Order: sequence, then structure tokens, then C-alpha cells
Amino acid sequence: LTKNHISLVLTLDSMNPNVRRVEYAVRGPIVQRAVQIEKELREGVKKPFTEVIKANIGDAHAMGQKPITFFRQVLALCSYPDLLEDNKFPEDAKKRARRILDACGGHSIGAYSASQGIECIRQDVARYIEKRDGGIPSNPDNIYLSTGASDAIVTMLKLLVCGEGRDRTGVMISIPQYPLYSAALADLGAVQINYYLDEDKCWGLDVTELRRALNAAKQHCKPRVLCIINPGNPTGQVQSRECIEDVIRFAKEENLFLMADEVYQDNVYAKGCKFHSFKKVLFEMGPEYSSSLEMASFHSTSKCYMGECGFRGGYMEVLNMDPEVKAQLTKLVSVRLCPPVSGQAMLDLVVNPPLPDEPSYASYLKERTAVLAALAEKSHLTEEMFNTVPGITCNPVQGAMYTFPRITLPQKAIAKAQEEGQAPDMLYCMKLLEEEGICLVPGSGFGQKEGTFHFRMTILPPTEKLKVVLQKIRDFHLRFTQEFS
Amino acid sequence: LTKNHISLVLTLDSMNPNVRRVEYAVRGPIVQRAVQIEKELREGVKKPFTEVIKANIGDAHAMGQKPITFFRQVLALCSYPDLLEDNKFPEDAKKRARRILDACGGHSIGAYSASQGIECIRQDVARYIEKRDGGIPSNPDNIYLSTGASDAIVTMLKLLVCGEGRDRTGVMISIPQYPLYSAALADLGAVQINYYLDEDKCWGLDVTELRRALNAAKQHCKPRVLCIINPGNPTGQVQSRECIEDVIRFAKEENLFLMADEVYQDNVYAKGCKFHSFKKVLFEMGPEYSSSLEMASFHSTSKCYMGECGFRGGYMEVLNMDPEVKAQLTKLVSVRLCPPVSGQAMLDLVVNPPLPDEPSYASYLKERTAVLAALAEKSHLTEEMFNTVPGITCNPVQGAMYTFPRITLPQKAIAKAQEEGQAPDMLYCMKLLEEEGICLVPGSGFGQKEGTFHFRMTILPPTEKLKVVLQKIRDFHLRFTQEFS
Repeated sequence: LTKNHISLVLTLDSMNPNVRRVEYAVRGPIVQRAVQIEKELREGVKKPFTEVIKANIGDAHAMGQKPITFFRQVLALCSYPDLLEDNKFPEDAKKRARRILDACGGHSIGAYSASQGIECIRQDVARYIEKRDGGIPSNPDNIYLSTGASDAIVTMLKLLVCGEGRDRTGVMISIPQYPLYSAALADLGAVQINYYLDEDKCWGLDVTELRRALNAAKQHCKPRVLCIINPGNPTGQVQSRECIEDVIRFAKEENLFLMADEVYQDNVYAKGCKFHSFKKVLFEMGPEYSSSLEMASFHSTSKCYMGECGFRGGYMEVLNMDPEVKAQLTKLVSVRLCPPVSGQAMLDLVVNPPLPDEPSYASYLKERTAVLAALAEKSHLTEEMFNTVPGITCNPVQGAMYTFPRITLPQKAIAKAQEEGQAPDMLYCMKLLEEEGICLVPGSGFGQKEGTFHFRMTILPPTEKLKVVLQKIRDFHLRFTQEFS
Repeated sequence: LTKNHISLVLTLDSMNPNVRRVEYAVRGPIVQRAVQIEKELREGVKKPFTEVIKANIGDAHAMGQKPITFFRQVLALCSYPDLLEDNKFPEDAKKRARRILDACGGHSIGAYSASQGIECIRQDVARYIEKRDGGIPSNPDNIYLSTGASDAIVTMLKLLVCGEGRDRTGVMISIPQYPLYSAALADLGAVQINYYLDEDKCWGLDVTELRRALNAAKQHCKPRVLCIINPGNPTGQVQSRECIEDVIRFAKEENLFLMADEVYQDNVYAKGCKFHSFKKVLFEMGPEYSSSLEMASFHSTSKCYMGECGFRGGYMEVLNMDPEVKAQLTKLVSVRLCPPVSGQAMLDLVVNPPLPDEPSYASYLKERTAVLAALAEKSHLTEEMFNTVPGITCNPVQGAMYTFPRITLPQKAIAKAQEEGQAPDMLYCMKLLEEEGICLVPGSGFGQKEGTFHFRMTILPPTEKLKVVLQKIRDFHLRFTQEFS
């Protein structure tokens, strides 16, 4: 082996160094260990628990959430159109399926679509955006369907990155952040510019901090892009209208391309909070802004009330993009041919669900409302419960699907982790996994203010299970604190 | 606008220069014009034809090919599991669907899968490969499911590219090539090393030519990768066993990572031709080769007899990959979370179709055989017909889905194209599109020996339509030749 190894073409030393720098904690070492433990459990290894609860990723169906019946009926009809003759399916489902199939080559979802996405689905997306934003126009030509939002975000970043040395593109991302951003920036060799959310102000975003980060970055790179996640991942804050206005003014002043990750736009739970799309606020600020600020916003089928992650559906809307660059974007996405057509079909249903006068409306509304109500309940439950634990403090989960509580770790635990070359919150989460079978992601995977520690947990487990999880984390936290005191 | 334009963040000049260099002719300007013409036809604009026939892309369903019934039944069951109670569905379809659903989080194809792909599907892929290769073992841990083969090919290239200047990774690709390769290399900033297939020897591959290309490239880059497409795209040749052995020996001698694009493995039509997988030949050459040559091979749900392009299913198998690099690969794919689960399900059916003792076997076999027989018929028809046209010469379509005939263009046409800054075969194809409504891709989009001209046409239109297409091209070619003489 050693002899062979010497002559290997592809080794850690000879591989793409940017890929080596990529990190993605949401599916990192802790999740690999969780999968291993699950295997051990299946093989009969005794553990202090009988199942691993994966609260590391926003994967609603895996946590038992049921799909929206109407959506799946249409998908079945699109997959096997013989069912269109079956009178078990409601007429509105058949109508949607026929419309999608008519827009497919050979009436089959097995045909490639246009690279930008099926035209009538892009039209539906545009209408959805118009309705959401109170009538502000949306042009289907500005809509690009994608393989989940991740795909579109990476594509957009790829377009934006250029230059070498001090001219290299800098991209501003929040800390804590969703690690897709840091991973994509490492992969592209772009410069990551951190701006910190204010934990003491419910993870609020302050333009002063944006300005500080930008000015510091100007010393060593060329900041060109500002990424915002609203509602926040992993931090769950919902930005106020004023905050969004401030951000837009800042982006315009500083000539930044704005990327608005709005995949949790239906996930708002806190009283007094409301989702405001960046686009709507931009247009309401008047033509000085709406006619010049370059922006892309992102949405997905994976979150909200439907949680259809596996379908990898998504879209982005671009605004004020140079037409020549748009042509380049269209060219770039054409190399991968098209997003999965079943994901496009799923997206079509998300943006074009049953209408009040259609037969499936009642069941759709009931299912949707139940999911969102349960999430709201769980968001409150989580905040309340964590804040009863000494050493855990937790901001309200205003939106999205995660809580990102701060944990106080004893000095001895921090020292032990440092000895082992591990982040202290990774030590904490690994121990929690081994002892309780609960899989979380350490705050270090998202970034956090130095000297503070957190974890991200989804609020997705069913209420009764979530209560057990919270209780177990509480017990573990007390035990951990005692053990290292 | 001008004023705004000055301050745009993202312009042709300030965008990622690698993306600007990307070209992808299969969906390039000619296809955009085809879409425009379709729109004009719908709007009632008079043309010398009533429909555009898109023979530019291997999109079987768009050309009227029907999906395999069994595959779509299973997909419908997976999409809407209530149908499992429906006795209209055969038991083997239900069994497959149950097995896939059991492997999904929450029994839903709406859950994320493991990033490498669903484990039991990777097992099925490994068994499929073993069966295909006469029992040579395949390890599911070496299988990575992907979003079509394109995704896996780009990921693999990304891992392999490093170095600067004369140390930059060079990647050998055939000319003519499938432009995904040149596009990915431009995007990654890697060095493209062209080796030419021999048109006079039925697009055969000669190691002498590989060596010439390699040695020339060593002057300015570090060649590390050899890409092979077999059966060939766009050239349709099927490599002999001897040729594959030569390639493997060459790759080993020169310490190259081998990428075998085998997405047309079921598409072999010519008498005396047979598909040999690179892996099988590698293992049959003995442990000296099989235990050390680093290789990845690629397959897809998009081609063969199923043509399920829209599902974006695919896989790659990696061999002799450094375990540390494999861990990096796994990390890299995890950033995009997972390939579309419906595409994974489709792939599972491709590698695990009905068995002879199962109820759907007869219909599956009948449908599969019919598609492949029709393709074989059309491959012969195409070759014969083109070779009757003065000024068109056409190699046999031994496999895959395309013909890549050589066209003789009059000097005046070449001069006119050059005046207009256009490739002469682009002029030809554009004129064909405008006059006959047939959309092909000019040979210049795939690369060709200087001074030769070609086009790529799929053999996918239904036989009767294909005959019309061939006749129209014949007439056009004669007219074109006369016009420019």
C-alpha cells in the first residue's frame, strides 16, 4: 500500500486545496458518529438510549412531519399519468398535473426542461412573488429554478467572485451563519467577511457592525457582496422592516450585491414579527433603490410548512442584473442541463396551491395550518424550557426552524477540549450524543463570538418527543456542568 | 441606465472570468433561436415548417419515447404512498416502493437522504455493477449517487484540479468531446488537453495520439487526468476491449487518474460491438492494474433505454481512491445535502429492474427491447441515408444516441461565415434551423480537426419522423451547396 500510495495521483497533498478548506458542520463529524451509533444500535450494541434523535438538520419529514396530501397527489399523477383516469384523485390535482405535463417535453417529467426552469412554473413563481409582495411586479425572465436553494446560492456566488490578492471578491456573511456560505466561499477561494449578529438584541443586525466589518475587510479584499438570511439560520431572528431598510441603504451606499436567503419566509412564530421580503421593502423605498440595487433572493421547497427537502426544488429571483451577465448566468446553468423536474413540479405546487374554490383547498389549509401551528408551539416550548436551565440562555425562536442557545461551559471542560484539539462545544455535543443519543450541531460549526459557546437544535421533533429531548438536554447540561466543576 | 450601469457591481468585466470562458453548445445560441422560433410559430408567424424538431440533445421523452411503465408506477407509489393500498399496482412495484420508502427518513422521499445517497440504493448499484462485470466485486462505499452524471463528473474534476502556472492540472479530453468537459474545465480554470479521435478509423482512439497530446501538454501544465467517453458522445463509437486495455496501460504508465463516462452503456447497436466497462477490463488485466489505477466511472438514468433525463439520477463508482481523499469527497458532496431523492429512486429501478419471476418482468422487457431495437434501427437508417448525400460522410453509429457526420462546405460559405465571425458549421446549422425547423448542434461546439466541419444530430426522433428529418437535411445540404457554389 505504501508503495502504491507514493504514486497516487490524488492525495490530500495533491488535491484541490480549496476543497480541503471547505467545512460543513451540519453534516460533519458529529453526524457521521450519529450514523455509526445508529448502526451499532441495530447490531444490538447496548446504549443508554434506544434511538438517535437527529435534531441537527432541518429535515421535517425525517422527524415525522407528513407531506401535504395535495402536493403528493399531483406528483404521483405527474409520475404515472395513467392515474389521470383514476377518479380517486381530485380534479384540482389532475388539473395541476395536466398543466405541468403539458409544459414538459413529450408530456413527461422524464424530459429535460429549459435550463432556467419550465416556463409556466417560472410564471407561477412570478405570480406568487407578486401576490406575496402586494402587487410589486415580478418578471418570469428574472426567475431561475434550481436544485434546492443551495444550488442557486452557490451559482450566484460563483458569478460574483473574481480578482486576485487584495482585489479578490469579499463576501459579507452573518456570524453565526449557515455553513453553506462559508463552504461555498472556501470552494471558490473568495474572502469571507464576518459581521456579527447581536445575541443580546435577539440576534439583531446592526448597520454599525456591517460598516465595521466592511471597513476592516477593505484593507485586504474587495467587498462586493452582502448575504443576509431572514428569518435567520441558525439564529431564528426575524428582521424588522426598519432593519431591512437600513441594510438596503447600506448595500446601496457601499455598492454591494445583495443576496437575500429567504427560505424560511413562511416560518414566523413570534408575536409582532412578520416576514418582509427584501424585494418588497426595496420597492417601497422608491425607484432610487428599486431601479438600481442588484439583488438575488432565494426560496426553496425544503422548509416552511411543506418540508420537501428530498425533492431539491428552489428558485432565485434576480433584480437589476446587467442583461449581459444574465445571459452568462443562463449559459452557466445550462451546463448542468436542468434542475430535477419533479422538484420543479413540487415548487409549482408550493407557489400555486389549491385556491379557496377548489376541492383540495380545505384539506390543504388544514394540513398547512396544523404544521405551522405545531412549529409555533414548539418554538415557544423550546425557548421557555431552555431558559429554565442554569447555564443555558436562549433567545426567542421568532422564525425559521432552529434554536441557537448559548451554553456556559465550565473552565475544566474548555481546557479538556483544548487539550484534545477540539472546539469546546464539539466536546459538549459529542458527549451529549454518546450519552443521550441526541444529535445537535456545535455553535463552532456556524461561527460565534470568541469565548461564547452554543449549539443549533431543530424544533422539528414531534411535540411529545421534543419535550423528552429538552428534558434530556437539561439533565445532560446539569450533569456536564457538575462533572467539569 | 448608463449612469446606473457605471456603478453596477456585477458586469461582464467584473464577473468571474472563468464563467465567461465557459461554453456549452448543446444549449447554446442555436437552441435559444430554436426556442424563439417555436414562440413565433405559436404566435402565428408564417414559416416554411410547422414545428421545430430538436435533434440537438439526447432527450428521449421529448422525442416521444415512452417511460418504462414499471419505473413510473414505483415513482408514483413513492410519491403518494396511499397508492400502496391500491390493487391496480403490481406487487413487485409495491415491493420496490416499500423498500425505497423504508430507507427514507420518516418513510418519505421528501426527507434528505445521506449525502452519498441512500445506502440500500448504493447497495443495489454495487450489485448491478457486479452482475454487469461478471462478478468482479463492487463496494457500496465506493458508490456516490449524484444529480445526473454531470454533477458527479464536475465534482470529480473539482477534486482533481490544483496548482498554478505550469503546475496547473491538465485534463485530457477527446476531440470531439461532450462540452460538459470543456465547460467544467473552463469553470475550474484547469488546462484542457485535447486528444483527437480518428474519424477515418470510425472515431477510434489511438494511444499514439494520447501520447502525442500528453507530451505536448507537459510543456505547459501538469497532466493528471484522462477522460474517456465510451460509447462515444458525440461520435457514437464503441471502444474495443483492446483499445480499453491500451488506455488503461497508458493511464498507469503516465500516472493519470482515469474518468470513464459510461452513461451510454446499454446503447450499443453495431454488429460485433459490445460494451466493455473500464472496470471489468481493469480487473481482468490483473492486480498490477486493478489494485493501483485510480479511476471513477459514471452512469446516469438519462440515457440507455429509459431516457429519464428530468429525474437527474446518476452515480459514480470510485476505485483505488485514497481514503483521506474519499473523506474529502464525502464532505464536499454533503454541502449540497443530497441528490434529488426521486432521482435516486429512479436509479434504483434502473439497477434493480423486475426479475424474470416477477409480475412486471414481461412488460418491462418488452418496453426495453422495443426502445433499444428502435434505436438500433434508427442508427443504421441514419448512417445509410447520410452516406447517400454528396458532401456528407458518416461513420456508423455503433452506440450512444448521436450521429456526427462530416459535411463538406463550399469555400464561399466558409468565407461568408468568417466574414460574420461565425463558425462555418454554425452558419450551416443556423440556416438549416431557419429554413427547415431542424435544430442540430454544429461540430465546432464539440471540437473537430481544423478545416473539417460536422454537426451532431440525435437519432431519437420516431422512425417516420427521423426519415423526414434526414430527407430534409439532404435537401437542405444540396441546396446549401448549390447556393454557395
